[in-house]
Amino acid sequence: MMDRSQVPEATIERLPIYLRCLMHAQAMRMPLINSAGLAEMAGTNAAQVRKDLSYLGELGTRGIGYDVGELIGHICRWLGLSQSRHVAIVGYGRLGQALLGYGGFQDRGFSVVAVFDSDPDKIGKTTDGGLVVHSMEDIDQIIESEKIEIAVLAVPVTEAQLVADGLVASGVRAILDFAPTRLEVPEDVTVRYVDLSVELQVLSFYLNTRESGDARDVS
Amino acid sequence: MMDRSQVPEATIERLPIYLRCLMHAQAMRMPLINSAGLAEMAGTNAAQVRKDLSYLGELGTRGIGYDVGELIGHICRWLGLSQSRHVAIVGYGRLGQALLGYGGFQDRGFSVVAVFDSDPDKIGKTTDGGLVVHSMEDIDQIIESEKIEIAVLAVPVTEAQLVADGLVASGVRAILDFAPTRLEVPEDVTVRYVDLSVELQVLSFYLNTRESGDARDVS
Repeated sequence: MMDRSQVPEATIERLPIYLRCLMHAQAMRMPLINSAGLAEMAGTNAAQVRKDLSYLGELGTRGIGYDVGELIGHICRWLGLSQSRHVAIVGYGRLGQALLGYGGFQDRGFSVVAVFDSDPDKIGKTTDGGLVVHSMEDIDQIIESEKIEIAVLAVPVTEAQLVADGLVASGVRAILDFAPTRLEVPEDVTVRYVDLSVELQVLSFYLNTRESGDARDVS
Repeated sequence: MMDRSQVPEATIERLPIYLRCLMHAQAMRMPLINSAGLAEMAGTNAAQVRKDLSYLGELGTRGIGYDVGELIGHICRWLGLSQSRHVAIVGYGRLGQALLGYGGFQDRGFSVVAVFDSDPDKIGKTTDGGLVVHSMEDIDQIIESEKIEIAVLAVPVTEAQLVADGLVASGVRAILDFAPTRLEVPEDVTVRYVDLSVELQVLSFYLNTRESGDARDVS
């Protein structure tokens, strides 16, 4: 069995996908699943599934497969999902509001417990979900009182670093950043970036490849 | 020089990041950049930068670096960004509205030219940006008349496959999907998924790793 720090990032990124597929399998009352079946649901191949899951320990039985319920438990423990995690959304603009309205967090064990903004017109307002929009100045106090572990940054790019500094100083160790910038944070803080333009540019690459014909050299 | 179809997906995903860093370097009036400098800006290492860029051809001069302007041109051509691409947003709920309000697309050569929804109360309304919300029934006609190449799916998970089928039938070959599901599409259609819960679960893994201590075996 492996040291957690040796699990490749690509594997960590696939574990939530496997988890979603396994929960679907469980809802369909499948007691067992083999690597080929899980691979097909997750959009990868069986060898990759076996390799990824081997980091979690010696799981599954050759020729039979994995016990669905057991594997769900293993992945949840590895992802630290047995406890609910408190999340703050920082920035109550259009994106922040969309994220608050996004139902998917609660279902997966993440609880949005606070919202912050710097706009005096927004501070003090109540969100659809019944949260009060707090001033950025209260970040430090509320991160502590609400036991917030993850912050979702939905602020303009010009404010992102300053806000991140405040969050880190308040003890936040995990940030999901929507601003198209790289944040400078201490080594013990993990940042994940969601840059929607990057996604469109990757799509553009594939469109362009098709237009050019695969074999044509465009450089 | 490489066949485009042999460029690894991870490299394709880093090209937009390099592009962003290079445009920043250009704005700072840097004429040249070496792989270590670009790596630092992009949050990777110099060997990775050299390897990624080697897919684009024999670029750069040993001991001197890359010409910033030239490299920007190369990456733009590879990503097919020399032409502006027309984008449709399908689903005018909170997420669709946030995506429409997101300024980052236009700056990077993507033009949102149409919005669709199935809700009669929304159809016919004008968005802040001056677009009219169209009925899903008009997808086929408008995809063609507006020359739309990329569709952003911001619909509920239960509708995603049906809507995707309609888009593909209308000729769309690139989809950015926000619904937490895997779409079934023909081989010549590229789908990129943005699943915000997956991002939170990856963050949770790292929080959990820190709590457990790296060496502790939790499986």
